[in-house]
Amino acid sequence: MKITSVFEIATLADHLPAADAAMQEGARAHQNALTKPPGSLGRLEELAIFMAGWRANARPEITTAQALVFAGNHGVCAQGVNPYPQEVTAQMVANFEHGGAAINQLCRANGADLRVIALDLDRPTADFTQGPAMTEAETLDAINRGAAAVDPGADVVILGEMGIGNSTIAAALASALFKGTPADWVGPGTGADAAGLARKIAAITTGLALHGAKSPMEILAALGGREQAAICGAVLAARAQRAPVILDGFICTSAAATLYAADPRLLDHCLVGHVSAEPGHRRLLDAIDKRAVLEFDMRLGEGSGAALALGILRSALACHNGMATFAQAGISEA
Amino acid sequence: MKITSVFEIATLADHLPAADAAMQEGARAHQNALTKPPGSLGRLEELAIFMAGWRANARPEITTAQALVFAGNHGVCAQGVNPYPQEVTAQMVANFEHGGAAINQLCRANGADLRVIALDLDRPTADFTQGPAMTEAETLDAINRGAAAVDPGADVVILGEMGIGNSTIAAALASALFKGTPADWVGPGTGADAAGLARKIAAITTGLALHGAKSPMEILAALGGREQAAICGAVLAARAQRAPVILDGFICTSAAATLYAADPRLLDHCLVGHVSAEPGHRRLLDAIDKRAVLEFDMRLGEGSGAALALGILRSALACHNGMATFAQAGISEA
Repeated sequence: MKITSVFEIATLADHLPAADAAMQEGARAHQNALTKPPGSLGRLEELAIFMAGWRANARPEITTAQALVFAGNHGVCAQGVNPYPQEVTAQMVANFEHGGAAINQLCRANGADLRVIALDLDRPTADFTQGPAMTEAETLDAINRGAAAVDPGADVVILGEMGIGNSTIAAALASALFKGTPADWVGPGTGADAAGLARKIAAITTGLALHGAKSPMEILAALGGREQAAICGAVLAARAQRAPVILDGFICTSAAATLYAADPRLLDHCLVGHVSAEPGHRRLLDAIDKRAVLEFDMRLGEGSGAALALGILRSALACHNGMATFAQAGISEA
Repeated sequence: MKITSVFEIATLADHLPAADAAMQEGARAHQNALTKPPGSLGRLEELAIFMAGWRANARPEITTAQALVFAGNHGVCAQGVNPYPQEVTAQMVANFEHGGAAINQLCRANGADLRVIALDLDRPTADFTQGPAMTEAETLDAINRGAAAVDPGADVVILGEMGIGNSTIAAALASALFKGTPADWVGPGTGADAAGLARKIAAITTGLALHGAKSPMEILAALGGREQAAICGAVLAARAQRAPVILDGFICTSAAATLYAADPRLLDHCLVGHVSAEPGHRRLLDAIDKRAVLEFDMRLGEGSGAALALGILRSALACHNGMATFAQAGISEA
């Protein structure tokens, strides 16, 4: 998949695969034949049926789960929006590469292959309080790098991000895409105090005033960053190969929400792994009409909540594919 | 561990191990040194600290996770409280033994060794609307069989149950132990309709009137069943070896709640794996002051929600034990 114009994205939903309703029905019928009261596995049943629709297979399996973590740096850090120095983005990428971060452990524990993609960390995006964060060409480049990172053999794609300052990017995107003031969307991120929060709100207020009303993909360029654009590209490439996506927390979801604003169907194949402790995330899930898989008061990013949810998805499919039916087990029905 | 009198149980909390506060503090300090903003792994951090306290080890690991499923039959089924015939209990035990049930798949997916203990299925307890369900000797026997089933090498014990009619047992125990009317605690269980619900409420109302006010362990004998007593024994035996327990849904939790009513400290080493869709479970969690690990609209029993939560606990310890510290990774702090 190669995107050649940001305006093309809003038209993609008409051409990308949809969930296979017949396979969903087959999966639902299979669930109802398994040795349990109908519906008693709750959301595990829903997850298995969801997978069946997207994989176009009534008995879907996860052979390859790919976790992609995109990292970027942001010019808006010049506004003092984050207590950590910007070098931490590259330091954390090195930590990912050496296996020392939370996402490394969570991928190993839940069976995901981790790939980390650092996007021009020595060349931060422009400060959106001064002008657009990215040109259209930069945005497209990052979208296409995200799309190209998706393993064509992946059955499910976990998305995450790392980027000092990017909870401000997330709140800026959400403010521009959906209703509410910047203060409604801003939270402590990695640990901003009251003064830090005020700087985040001021930066977003300035950015919104500067860039005005734009289309969702123009908002992504004006206020977003490379890791946000790459997440969009990966979401689209996964859809093209019928691989469901597990989004992570506030920052990852706000990036994908630009696609939702362009056409809500573009996120139909996406689960949200968890609802973050970052307060804007719950509001954002309402805006994009998603219920998270887990609620664990996490607020780390990196794809950590999405990787944790992968374990739940694996359990859902283990039941779906491994359980006996009432007929097989010779059990009396109600 | 061998319990020789039900009255002994209320005194056990003074003699059983407590959480090791120094190891909890050590685990907390370690969490704060790991490469993430402090607290950003949310409840995963709390789970790791909880494990450290009970295992008396600041870096606890799960080598052996044991899942115990106790099965029993209940005389109260004569009151028409369940749409399934009572033979289904033994049929489901056979399904467990042949590997076809949800708990088999969830144990394999989350790394638990499953053991199923059928407790005199051909000899149901007495109908509690006519007299006490069990004698003290029967109750003690089941408690001690539950205690004896715990693997002395288990680092964590997952508890579950199977028994046609036992959602009525659970509601009866909860009604007798805590406030509220039978209707507050009764739910559809495996699939009771309105008439079935009315029969459940009527049976419990009769049982409560017949047995009057009793101590928690006498309530267990009067209204409980063998799998409920065995769960209590396993909770106590796990505590004696400092192994945390993961309780399952409404039925499993109501059994353990008899211990809570005897002395709340007796459940200090217990997590509740999930909050069930069975409506009484949320009320019960409030009564015993526990927050469940997961909320997944499950209502199957068998230990299914507890086994799912084991995967989360494994992820929590994977982060705790596998992540680099800021110093190790050479990352700038805020």
